[in-house]
Amino acid sequence: MAETIVGADSLRAFTQELFARVGVPSADAAIQADVLVWANLRGVDSHGVLRIPWYVELLESGLMKARPNVRVVVETPAVLLIEADHAPGPIVTTRVMEQAIGKAREAGICWALLRNTTHQGALGYYTSQAARAGMAGIAIVCSPPNMAPYGAKAPGLHNSPISIAVPAGRHGRLMLDMATSVAAGGKLQLARDKGLPLPPGWALDRQGNPTTDARQAATLMPMAGPKGSGLALMFECLASLMVGNPLLIDMLHGRETVRRHRQNGIVAAIDIARFTALERYREDADSTVDGLKSLPGADGADEILVPGEWEDRIEADRRAHGIPLPDGTLARIRPVAERLGVSMPW
Amino acid sequence: MAETIVGADSLRAFTQELFARVGVPSADAAIQADVLVWANLRGVDSHGVLRIPWYVELLESGLMKARPNVRVVVETPAVLLIEADHAPGPIVTTRVMEQAIGKAREAGICWALLRNTTHQGALGYYTSQAARAGMAGIAIVCSPPNMAPYGAKAPGLHNSPISIAVPAGRHGRLMLDMATSVAAGGKLQLARDKGLPLPPGWALDRQGNPTTDARQAATLMPMAGPKGSGLALMFECLASLMVGNPLLIDMLHGRETVRRHRQNGIVAAIDIARFTALERYREDADSTVDGLKSLPGADGADEILVPGEWEDRIEADRRAHGIPLPDGTLARIRPVAERLGVSMPW
Repeated sequence: MAETIVGADSLRAFTQELFARVGVPSADAAIQADVLVWANLRGVDSHGVLRIPWYVELLESGLMKARPNVRVVVETPAVLLIEADHAPGPIVTTRVMEQAIGKAREAGICWALLRNTTHQGALGYYTSQAARAGMAGIAIVCSPPNMAPYGAKAPGLHNSPISIAVPAGRHGRLMLDMATSVAAGGKLQLARDKGLPLPPGWALDRQGNPTTDARQAATLMPMAGPKGSGLALMFECLASLMVGNPLLIDMLHGRETVRRHRQNGIVAAIDIARFTALERYREDADSTVDGLKSLPGADGADEILVPGEWEDRIEADRRAHGIPLPDGTLARIRPVAERLGVSMPW
Repeated sequence: MAETIVGADSLRAFTQELFARVGVPSADAAIQADVLVWANLRGVDSHGVLRIPWYVELLESGLMKARPNVRVVVETPAVLLIEADHAPGPIVTTRVMEQAIGKAREAGICWALLRNTTHQGALGYYTSQAARAGMAGIAIVCSPPNMAPYGAKAPGLHNSPISIAVPAGRHGRLMLDMATSVAAGGKLQLARDKGLPLPPGWALDRQGNPTTDARQAATLMPMAGPKGSGLALMFECLASLMVGNPLLIDMLHGRETVRRHRQNGIVAAIDIARFTALERYREDADSTVDGLKSLPGADGADEILVPGEWEDRIEADRRAHGIPLPDGTLARIRPVAERLGVSMPW
């Protein structure tokens, strides 16, 4: 697969300009660009600039709003409910996490709920904001169904991801970002693009039969059977039902047959310094990581990695040497850039 | 396997009396008994009265304290850090969840950390307290290592469980309670007791080789590979590191070779009524469950169950007809009861 190497800065500037052209205020477009390019830097290309054409489509259709009326609906010293009014997910989520970090400094925790947000990109961006501020960060997001509940052969749950990040010392920070499906949707798209088969157990076709043909894959399978299925359902309860905006019901009861893009989410920050000395925390995190990495490796395993470590290495490499964008991705972005009159930086 | 049917009330009275005889104040012993018998009622026998001899041993050795000095170390409107002083887990956790529910009525959320608690039994008991109060409940607990991190062949993580519960309407409440290992430790014990082999992928032996021999099983495996492994590590960071009492480090660095029983935990309550109408929440939960249960079933699946539903059915049956206790369990409890002079109610 041919690819082009693009520097992060020029990719960010290009992305910002592109969102500005569809009406997103410049400061907001800068955040949007930073979140997308961050995903590319970390090798999570499925959540990077690949998504630009879809986002532009959502903005032009009105399912995502360039100038939303974001407002606080509920606020206590420790919680927020934000009506996101279909704002671009990265923009509103970055801002709400900043607000949550500020509130957590006072109350020890801030648990912020986002209602009617849109695709947030890589959740680890927001939990990393908390870790940089010396806090633990938690993020969860919910969408309409794309995953079969355990025991079913049709979609009924979303493979709602969760990210948790905490600061370390020498090890920087630990950051988990995982979907509740066996494999994230982006990995199916990648297999489709590469013409590769799927491992068994990843997906069902439209008839509800297990398939290893990426082109036939229609419904994701939950990780660890009832566990991934159960977590996904409880995340919907903690996020969507809590904000009075359930996202599974319409499709489950046949009131909606095509997924209309909308999301609810949670971002939380917990201020470590309220409970223990932050320096001690960082040392304990380092010591835990060192201990884990020194364990005897399983047969066939090269190395024991902790959450986020693999992506940290990709990020170091791509910050130094640029981001490789496959021709397929460039081909998807080009028509949008041309139509909006933004020149491609490659 | 022969068994004896025992009514919940007499099993509870017996258990309370037994804990009172080892110095636990009567009101505390009543809570301890209620939590253990609740697990038996729900068919989670691995967390029920089966544990009595071990708890008595911990109490007599001082690793668990009958009259601990439980105290609040940190408090804001929305968080608590409780030094549990090695209190019996069920007693301190039930009380802290009550306190958390009270604080969540004011702040919208209470995130309570427990330091130096002991075995908490079935976590669903505490999250169900929150659900009964019209709140979402979350509970997480951490212990020294018993599970191999992804890529390792020796224990380095604990298979830290998480429970999440929310209230519904007709459906009562949804309650997930799951370990981050492929199978909970209790299931290995059960296979051992029954002389059955383990399914592949559940456990490693002491040399770090995969085993299906329950008697050789020494180390649990993480659910969904890096996902269960990652969640377990992040739970240690959110609970143990946050309270300055790391539980993995000593064994990881060889400073401890035998697991000394101690735990840290999190219980949180989120007040639904602060965000949306509770009645609306209950209806949405019912509607989500109804929709999930009406999906076409996977081949070979009898029925689509939601978290906690299976145990709800066992509970209804056992409340009506009593709790079947296997002879093996009775044989374990008898010597302790005789020594402490408590007559067995069967």
